[in-house]
Amino acid sequence: MSLKKSKRPSNKAGLEAGTLFYVGDKQFNDVKITIFNYNQHHIAEFTAQNIDQCTFDHTEPMIKWINVDGVHKTEIISALGSQYALHPLLQEDIINTEQRPKFDDFDTHLYVVLKMLNYNQQTQTVEYEQVSLILGNNFVISFQEDKAGDIWEEIRNRLRNPNSKSRKSGADYLLYSLLDAIVDHYFIIIEKIGDQIEEIEEKIMYHANNELLKQIYKLRRELIFLRKSIWPLREVLSRLDKSESTLISPPIAIFFRDTYDHTIQIIDTIEVYREILSGVLEVYLSNISLKMNGVMKVLTVISTIFMPLTFIAGVYGMNFDMMPELHWKYGYIFVWAIMCAVVAAMIYYFRKKGWF
Amino acid sequence: MSLKKSKRPSNKAGLEAGTLFYVGDKQFNDVKITIFNYNQHHIAEFTAQNIDQCTFDHTEPMIKWINVDGVHKTEIISALGSQYALHPLLQEDIINTEQRPKFDDFDTHLYVVLKMLNYNQQTQTVEYEQVSLILGNNFVISFQEDKAGDIWEEIRNRLRNPNSKSRKSGADYLLYSLLDAIVDHYFIIIEKIGDQIEEIEEKIMYHANNELLKQIYKLRRELIFLRKSIWPLREVLSRLDKSESTLISPPIAIFFRDTYDHTIQIIDTIEVYREILSGVLEVYLSNISLKMNGVMKVLTVISTIFMPLTFIAGVYGMNFDMMPELHWKYGYIFVWAIMCAVVAAMIYYFRKKGWF
Amino acid sequence: MSLKKSKRPSNKAGLEAGTLFYVGDKQFNDVKITIFNYNQHHIAEFTAQNIDQCTFDHTEPMIKWINVDGVHKTEIISALGSQYALHPLLQEDIINTEQRPKFDDFDTHLYVVLKMLNYNQQTQTVEYEQVSLILGNNFVISFQEDKAGDIWEEIRNRLRNPNSKSRKSGADYLLYSLLDAIVDHYFIIIEKIGDQIEEIEEKIMYHANNELLKQIYKLRRELIFLRKSIWPLREVLSRLDKSESTLISPPIAIFFRDTYDHTIQIIDTIEVYREILSGVLEVYLSNISLKMNGVMKVLTVISTIFMPLTFIAGVYGMNFDMMPELHWKYGYIFVWAIMCAVVAAMIYYFRKKGWF
Amino acid sequence: MSLKKSKRPSNKAGLEAGTLFYVGDKQFNDVKITIFNYNQHHIAEFTAQNIDQCTFDHTEPMIKWINVDGVHKTEIISALGSQYALHPLLQEDIINTEQRPKFDDFDTHLYVVLKMLNYNQQTQTVEYEQVSLILGNNFVISFQEDKAGDIWEEIRNRLRNPNSKSRKSGADYLLYSLLDAIVDHYFIIIEKIGDQIEEIEEKIMYHANNELLKQIYKLRRELIFLRKSIWPLREVLSRLDKSESTLISPPIAIFFRDTYDHTIQIIDTIEVYREILSGVLEVYLSNISLKMNGVMKVLTVISTIFMPLTFIAGVYGMNFDMMPELHWKYGYIFVWAIMCAVVAAMIYYFRKKGWF
Amino acid sequence: MSLKKSKRPSNKAGLEAGTLFYVGDKQFNDVKITIFNYNQHHIAEFTAQNIDQCTFDHTEPMIKWINVDGVHKTEIISALGSQYALHPLLQEDIINTEQRPKFDDFDTHLYVVLKMLNYNQQTQTVEYEQVSLILGNNFVISFQEDKAGDIWEEIRNRLRNPNSKSRKSGADYLLYSLLDAIVDHYFIIIEKIGDQIEEIEEKIMYHANNELLKQIYKLRRELIFLRKSIWPLREVLSRLDKSESTLISPPIAIFFRDTYDHTIQIIDTIEVYREILSGVLEVYLSNISLKMNGVMKVLTVISTIFMPLTFIAGVYGMNFDMMPELHWKYGYIFVWAIMCAVVAAMIYYFRKKGWF
Repeated sequence: MSLKKSKRPSNKAGLEAGTLFYVGDKQFNDVKITIFNYNQHHIAEFTAQNIDQCTFDHTEPMIKWINVDGVHKTEIISALGSQYALHPLLQEDIINTEQRPKFDDFDTHLYVVLKMLNYNQQTQTVEYEQVSLILGNNFVISFQEDKAGDIWEEIRNRLRNPNSKSRKSGADYLLYSLLDAIVDHYFIIIEKIGDQIEEIEEKIMYHANNELLKQIYKLRRELIFLRKSIWPLREVLSRLDKSESTLISPPIAIFFRDTYDHTIQIIDTIEVYREILSGVLEVYLSNISLKMNGVMKVLTVISTIFMPLTFIAGVYGMNFDMMPELHWKYGYIFVWAIMCAVVAAMIYYFRKKGWF
Repeated sequence: MSLKKSKRPSNKAGLEAGTLFYVGDKQFNDVKITIFNYNQHHIAEFTAQNIDQCTFDHTEPMIKWINVDGVHKTEIISALGSQYALHPLLQEDIINTEQRPKFDDFDTHLYVVLKMLNYNQQTQTVEYEQVSLILGNNFVISFQEDKAGDIWEEIRNRLRNPNSKSRKSGADYLLYSLLDAIVDHYFIIIEKIGDQIEEIEEKIMYHANNELLKQIYKLRRELIFLRKSIWPLREVLSRLDKSESTLISPPIAIFFRDTYDHTIQIIDTIEVYREILSGVLEVYLSNISLKMNGVMKVLTVISTIFMPLTFIAGVYGMNFDMMPELHWKYGYIFVWAIMCAVVAAMIYYFRKKGWF
Repeated sequence: MSLKKSKRPSNKAGLEAGTLFYVGDKQFNDVKITIFNYNQHHIAEFTAQNIDQCTFDHTEPMIKWINVDGVHKTEIISALGSQYALHPLLQEDIINTEQRPKFDDFDTHLYVVLKMLNYNQQTQTVEYEQVSLILGNNFVISFQEDKAGDIWEEIRNRLRNPNSKSRKSGADYLLYSLLDAIVDHYFIIIEKIGDQIEEIEEKIMYHANNELLKQIYKLRRELIFLRKSIWPLREVLSRLDKSESTLISPPIAIFFRDTYDHTIQIIDTIEVYREILSGVLEVYLSNISLKMNGVMKVLTVISTIFMPLTFIAGVYGMNFDMMPELHWKYGYIFVWAIMCAVVAAMIYYFRKKGWF
Repeated sequence: MSLKKSKRPSNKAGLEAGTLFYVGDKQFNDVKITIFNYNQHHIAEFTAQNIDQCTFDHTEPMIKWINVDGVHKTEIISALGSQYALHPLLQEDIINTEQRPKFDDFDTHLYVVLKMLNYNQQTQTVEYEQVSLILGNNFVISFQEDKAGDIWEEIRNRLRNPNSKSRKSGADYLLYSLLDAIVDHYFIIIEKIGDQIEEIEEKIMYHANNELLKQIYKLRRELIFLRKSIWPLREVLSRLDKSESTLISPPIAIFFRDTYDHTIQIIDTIEVYREILSGVLEVYLSNISLKMNGVMKVLTVISTIFMPLTFIAGVYGMNFDMMPELHWKYGYIFVWAIMCAVVAAMIYYFRKKGWF
Repeated sequence: MSLKKSKRPSNKAGLEAGTLFYVGDKQFNDVKITIFNYNQHHIAEFTAQNIDQCTFDHTEPMIKWINVDGVHKTEIISALGSQYALHPLLQEDIINTEQRPKFDDFDTHLYVVLKMLNYNQQTQTVEYEQVSLILGNNFVISFQEDKAGDIWEEIRNRLRNPNSKSRKSGADYLLYSLLDAIVDHYFIIIEKIGDQIEEIEEKIMYHANNELLKQIYKLRRELIFLRKSIWPLREVLSRLDKSESTLISPPIAIFFRDTYDHTIQIIDTIEVYREILSGVLEVYLSNISLKMNGVMKVLTVISTIFMPLTFIAGVYGMNFDMMPELHWKYGYIFVWAIMCAVVAAMIYYFRKKGWF
């Protein structure tokens, strides 16, 4: 995640509350609205051509799921907002794609906003997409940023199957399914990061290069942003589970508790990964120190052996008139003997110090 | 922020509580008082020439916003204080510009004090200005230190527009607008810092100089002070949202919750930036170690190759009478051969150790 | 514990809640179901051949303990689930072997899931096995992953003894016994890790090699995973102790409090070990630095002594026509005297600096 | 603060609770007791000659403030203790000058103990003096250790002024004034430390010597003890503010909240200083590493350039009979050319590596 | 404290709850039981010869204190347990000498277990002994491990004095006295550790050797174990203070609060010591780095000065036929001049860099 992305809301500083102002960065795609109208016996599935098709018919005993792909057309959001009597601040939150995950209870409808994560294989980074979910009486409206692929196809298939639990349950179960799919998808991201950490762990004991350092830094950064995105979800789901809203029936609340447990598990795993990465970095630094130590020993051994030798050779390269050793018969051999003795002494000394 | 600034309150140690004593550092500007008197139908906007123009007319069904630029004239504050029956401690807090953000409920009026931040492009630092806001029955009084520019012009424009929500709402909404403008402005500061961090992140992998270290240190220090200034705001807004004061109507309380959410988001971002900077510093230090390692390897390789060679050359520069090698026909070539062999052996050894 | 293991749940992302999908990795063993049917006077113990033998006879005043070894046959779990009216999410949790320890109260039955730990002597690692325990009215069902050996043989022996407290007590005491055996077993793991830390502590003051670093890293990692597995148990046992469920009689609740105390003790010990390991790593790094310091001193002393000497010898090896010293009678001895003086001065300097 | 001081209470280990045993270290000064007897109309101020002058006259409608300088005369404390019916443990706490700041409500009187701080200009250290304050019905008793000067002269002056708020208010306001003076005085200490930190910050970027390290260490230690002394005050003042004791009237409770806010601000500043000092230490260490890097580069550049040159010169200093190069006409110039080429190559190499 | 000690409980893994199994390590001493039977008027003090002498006579209006030295004879504990109707789990906890400090309320009796600390002068280590205290209606039973000396002699002396508060008070005051004596004794341990830290602080600025590192590590480890042993006492004493048990009368509860305050003070001091030790370690590491820097500078200065000189000398030691400089009249002096210039330039360079 680029730091750049997280500062967009500044553009709107100073606007009146409730003024719709899109802060995301994909404006070129058209908005696509898909609608599911279903109960246990009937199902209708279509793409809305205009905003009027989204109206909710209170007389019809059916559950309506409106999925909006793209939040950059503010007129669509305000149109839906007036049809479904959504609070102006809620509409503003849908458009501001830098929201912190949160839960708001507006009596007639509940609002959940969270991040959908996607692992981009090409750039090897995690992509963040904001998802807003509104649960009302017999309807669910979901807003996606339309960046990456959709992860709800599985839920659509279940809805198409007349015998599935999804089809037989209410709008609260649909909200749970959508949330659960997003949270379950987090595990895949976590798995990718776990793979990369393991890879680094294997390498770290033997290598300590700049490339590895870059990877550690990148992963650590990724985990910081992951935690920032997922941590507040804990409270969101806990409040959903304990919500006294009549929109969520008690048997369904147990399911939200289950999703809550998964979120805790993911946060635990992120913490574990962070601690492992810290450990890895310490090993990395220790390795550099150890290697430096090795390099220095080689240098010291070499210097300590050859400096005295060179000095001795230098002495007998002097041109004094009166250097009696130079004229001894075994002078040369004697010098070699001294030099060998020096080398032997040095090696003995280093062995005693445990440098070999 | 200079550390010097944060210790001024010491000057007043020993004074009686409620004694007004200005601790800020800009005394040269005159105080400017601007007044907005409005309801849905009428609006009057003027600069007060004397303190009597600030009186509140309870018979008039209008909302009064008094904005005081400059808190160094204690007589003005005490005059306003007696007109509006403000608690003596509150008056003292307005003047002491080193307040921690806080919220006080004095039954007849609410008091909020917080920091307005401004990014000074020239010095590349964040400037802190204290803002005090008092919400009473149909009036809002705001005090600024009058250091940097004003960020409420947008709000004034909205008030001038008879159809704006601001114009139609009460004094509580005006308080919210003023607070929200300040908090929204924080995002701009955060954005500037985010830009600088990104810049550092890009450089850090390749360079590790003193200049970069200074920048990291400066940013870290900035974040420490930012957190100190914004963190207590969390509690302030949370208490405003949950306040049982009749001065804030329930539909407006939701807006304060929204500002609370923004504050949490800013605090989250500050934490994320702090963690990223920690990571950056570790990368920096690792880089220094790695580079040192590289330098040492070069030194060791050079020494290890040339020391034995120099020694050999030194040996045959000795002047002993009896050095048979000197007189061999291929002695010289033979020595070169030995030297080449030494170099080859060394290179082989270093390659095996992976130093090239 | 391999990081790979902790990411399996991702495979089931997208499935409907309540869909049984086994995520463990041992599918080759057959499931073994052992049943204990007992009260104070009678006991029957047998291995179930088919699922019908697991039925619970409400007319019989006996306590039934069904132990299922292996959770990979989802049909068995769903069969037991419908016989004992277990909640679908509970069934799902039994199969997903990457659960975080947790406690769920489903009114008619309580569900506890936790980790059983086993120290593998060969690989010198800790193995994690998930255990699910269900307490109903007069029955306990336990599910093991069937990886390592069983630690409940002692409990079975006590049940076989007609005078034991276990035999005289209810199903809640059986649940306690099973839990307590697992928690008591944690102490053995902690003991093994304590032994290894002590071993490292003894070595660390004298050695600082890569092998030791690897061991420290491995232990640290082990402690991270241990803490992750045991920490949530605190809350599980605390909630069991304070549970208002009628399935646990108050005199037995005291026993759960005792197991809770043991868990706290284990967590305390893990924290202490983590802190000791941190200290050990710091000692390790300090040792490397100290040794480097020693190496560098040797190098510097040698260089500082021999470089001036070699230079002096070099000077008198020059071939200038006019070098009067060369022709002095005591020139050679004089040079030796100078060289000795240089050595003495250097040694004096180093002694003063405290390098010897 | 010397560590020695904080362990004195050990001397009294084993004594019966309520046994008075002085643990401070100044026993040579005499005890001085000053008494203020005042109400809005009258005031009497005198130094008590004997303990009987301290008696409280319940019939007289006046407020009595007894200030005791020196707590080493246990008989005085026990005499006052029986006159005012102070709890034996309270009397013990007054004498033990190593108390943690705390608040105790003994129904008929409230007890507050805290630290008065004084900055000793000569030793450049912070001095700690324990102050005990007892608030009863219309009386306040204060005990000081009589180490440093008194900071309450200002309060005495206000009492002498018949129109001051102090004179018109009750004993609870007097307690507040005494506390507030102590807390306000903390700001001066904080300011001194802030000055020293700024001084270090300015130096640290350019120097990294042992003296600076000592200063950083000393400041850090000072902050640790400051935090230890001030942190518990938070709870003390919070409990005073929320106390349901009838000895504190509600309008005065607001003043305690104000002092509480100041304490929080001081604690915040201490935390900020600690973080800045941590940052400073990291910069210090980074600077050492950077400088080491610079030193190593110089060494390596010099070695890498001159070692090959010396080797070449050494080769042509050999005395072989058959060295054709020696007899070439341009041999000498050729060798110089080679040496210049070597130097050029080395410089090119280092430039490419960015070492210049 | 050896890590080995803290893992004993593993031996009992698998035993039935309430099975007595001694896990301490001193089995050779005999158990000694001393009994005090007292009220305000009478006192009897004797050593029990058999277990029957420990029976409690409910008709007699006296307080009984049974002190058991040695917990390795399980039959004694179970005999006392049945006489005084102690809960089986409590009996088990007495024997398991690796308990975490805790408080249990069994209605008819209260149970407190904590650590008594003793500083062994010879081994310079802290010794841990477990003490169990049971408060019933008019009786106190205390169990010690009988390792080190007893610290309750002072309390016995007070009991023997008919006018002491101890003699006049109930069993709850006796429990307080025993606890308070243990906690007061902690101050002595803290004082010893404080002395050692101060000693290290004085040395650290000038020395940085392996011995000092060992001492720092040892102290740090000691503090980790101290904190582990004392930290849970906070909760124990807080629960005793707030206990609603009728066994503790309200005037005595205040005394427990006092002991609670002492415990907090000790924990605070331990935290302060830990922080100081961290600081000390950082100074130690900084010192190593600084010294290394100094060593490297010496090496670099020497190399940088002598390498060029040696090279120059080497050049004029070459044996080329045509080296005109060799035959110049002032060649030799000229070379010396060049060499002096090189030295001067180097010294100037190093001075500019601030290396001298």
